[in-house]
Amino acid sequence: MFERVYLDNAATTQLDPAVLEEMLPFLTDNYGNASSIHSFGQTARAAVDKARHRVAALINARPAEIVFTSGGTESNNLAIRGFIEAVRRKNPAAPSALPHIIISAIEHPAVKMVCDDLAGRFCELTVIPVNESGVIDHRKVLDAIREETILVSLMAVNNEIGTIQPIAEIGSAVRSLRESGQRIWLHTDAVQALGKMVVDVEVLSCDLLSLSGHKIHGPKGIGALYIRRGVRLHPQNIGGRQERGNRGGTEPVAQIVGFGSAAEIAGRELTGNAKRLQKLRDTFENTVLENIPDAFVNGERSGRVPNISNISFRGIEGEGLLINLDMQGFAVSTGAACSSGSIEPSPVIVALGRDDELARGAIRFSFSRFTKESEIERLLFALPQAVETLRSLSAGLSHK
Amino acid sequence: MFERVYLDNAATTQLDPAVLEEMLPFLTDNYGNASSIHSFGQTARAAVDKARHRVAALINARPAEIVFTSGGTESNNLAIRGFIEAVRRKNPAAPSALPHIIISAIEHPAVKMVCDDLAGRFCELTVIPVNESGVIDHRKVLDAIREETILVSLMAVNNEIGTIQPIAEIGSAVRSLRESGQRIWLHTDAVQALGKMVVDVEVLSCDLLSLSGHKIHGPKGIGALYIRRGVRLHPQNIGGRQERGNRGGTEPVAQIVGFGSAAEIAGRELTGNAKRLQKLRDTFENTVLENIPDAFVNGERSGRVPNISNISFRGIEGEGLLINLDMQGFAVSTGAACSSGSIEPSPVIVALGRDDELARGAIRFSFSRFTKESEIERLLFALPQAVETLRSLSAGLSHK
Repeated sequence: MFERVYLDNAATTQLDPAVLEEMLPFLTDNYGNASSIHSFGQTARAAVDKARHRVAALINARPAEIVFTSGGTESNNLAIRGFIEAVRRKNPAAPSALPHIIISAIEHPAVKMVCDDLAGRFCELTVIPVNESGVIDHRKVLDAIREETILVSLMAVNNEIGTIQPIAEIGSAVRSLRESGQRIWLHTDAVQALGKMVVDVEVLSCDLLSLSGHKIHGPKGIGALYIRRGVRLHPQNIGGRQERGNRGGTEPVAQIVGFGSAAEIAGRELTGNAKRLQKLRDTFENTVLENIPDAFVNGERSGRVPNISNISFRGIEGEGLLINLDMQGFAVSTGAACSSGSIEPSPVIVALGRDDELARGAIRFSFSRFTKESEIERLLFALPQAVETLRSLSAGLSHK
Repeated sequence: MFERVYLDNAATTQLDPAVLEEMLPFLTDNYGNASSIHSFGQTARAAVDKARHRVAALINARPAEIVFTSGGTESNNLAIRGFIEAVRRKNPAAPSALPHIIISAIEHPAVKMVCDDLAGRFCELTVIPVNESGVIDHRKVLDAIREETILVSLMAVNNEIGTIQPIAEIGSAVRSLRESGQRIWLHTDAVQALGKMVVDVEVLSCDLLSLSGHKIHGPKGIGALYIRRGVRLHPQNIGGRQERGNRGGTEPVAQIVGFGSAAEIAGRELTGNAKRLQKLRDTFENTVLENIPDAFVNGERSGRVPNISNISFRGIEGEGLLINLDMQGFAVSTGAACSSGSIEPSPVIVALGRDDELARGAIRFSFSRFTKESEIERLLFALPQAVETLRSLSAGLSHK
């Protein structure tokens, strides 16, 4: 049996064995509830506090600004729904105009769908398009801001094509507006940025920032929301005093410890890892473009995180290629795992202005610090043949 | 160093080593995202499906009726907020009367606080008192039902005193009402019942039922909500197609596997464990009552789950006794861990009609299938002296 090659690290990553090692005491002897007063509880509490410091340190925040959640999706929901609900409750009289939210056309469903769910009833929504490189034009965002705009929510890095968005520019403009009296805040979904580039809440000037553990070799089922001091959210999980009232529920201590450990390692490995992956990724892409005709890299090639490569192959269905590669032991993806099973082409690729055929022929290859050069070499050996096979099959079918 | 004795199993339980063993493959090699199409994803999906079957089997539900959540608190929030929001969206025109919810005076904060949060704006709320034994009078619940009542939410077992509530009687009445045309449903927080008594959604006739993994020797950070077929909830974590659209977010595979494993073991061990714990608990209580004057067991002694013993000691502060016992290696609690740090006496004990002094002098001892007889013997040796010490101290202070 061949060794399988995992190249779907934007969907989820393997748990770092060093992270598991830090988690294990909290999956065995140290099983206390972090809210209990006795010594079992104190041990758990100390571990949660340490993890909170580590996650805060990675994004240059204060520990008290970190709220642990069950993952990136909950963080985005808490940030947006919690923010809108807090505003509504503060001003219970129906406002003359609905509050206004701005997002981009390539947000993750956990932002897009939350805003769609609120739109019309609780807010007005403006969706800013992206250019053909998959980058938001920050001037378009600023132009869309009006008096009622209370929240701008933009991802730091796109999850399908890896493009880095101009959050710092927008954050700085939003901050200026607030300083001159407008009640406007910035949320950033930084789930795909963390561990791949510097994420600094001061540099980004953001007020809310979503994070996830399992994208940086931490456990699944744990995330965090950075809430800048002074920003108020209405809790979405109500029922306990945990997380300073922002999120009720028994703290998942082992998960939190794992996230803290993964954050610490991600910070330490950031520079070296980014440099290595960028080289690997660029070699991969250049070789693909040289060897496979009608292949196109999606998204701005220079302004991307180094772990994602999204390539459209004309004349094939992405899902067919995915399955062909899976049978050869390579795990890749056609888009976000959260929308698997969808028969629609990726809305992100469509937003770039790609035609329907190229949107359907897109494959995301995503790497991690555990990805070996030899694995990429094996993929580069298998890929041209796989594409060729599918193209002949497809040509054969269309001749019938 | 003495061996510590953990008697706070109603707050959280130790992870069963057999559960951890089932989780470990999903914390190491099998790290795929359950929503991914490739083989890593398929392995994860199969494990999630198996766990869903196991959890469903334990409560006599169909697998498709189980939605995994981040824990009991989220389950309660999804059940109540999600239900009210679904009703509101189905009838967008402001109703002539607000929908009406009925709960009891001894609900967990994750039910009580959620309802308080909705009350006034989105629903009217009736809180049914309990009798001095800590049991809800089901006739009072039925008397409180009116035309606008759409939801009754009552816990199956109280988390502080362990009393079993008459859910089946109420469920049967609610079902009859629905069959005769009223739009009314029953939610049960069964977090403290699971693994301690038979929990069968058909016997209880409930429509929504909340569960938690870490109370039955599963991992923290995972729970489930049973949603009877046909009942519609508005999701609270929006952003993916996971859990049939009821709850977005990458599935925490290892957590889910652990919950499934814990559920399977809980079902298998239920009868034997309950019998053993009941004997242990009764011996404990009888010995305490014989040897310590002015001690009172809180809650109906016959209709309780076998793992909880809540005792009030006149003339002491529960927290003082907790700390004294902790220094001797015994972990106990003054009430729910979720309200630790509160300086108020437990609202549950107050609801029984206990005077303030007895409410402040309450201690919860909670056992598990890992509790040894020798541990209870050691506690029975230490407890009278600890109570005596605190009483003299308190008497000494009051003489000054």
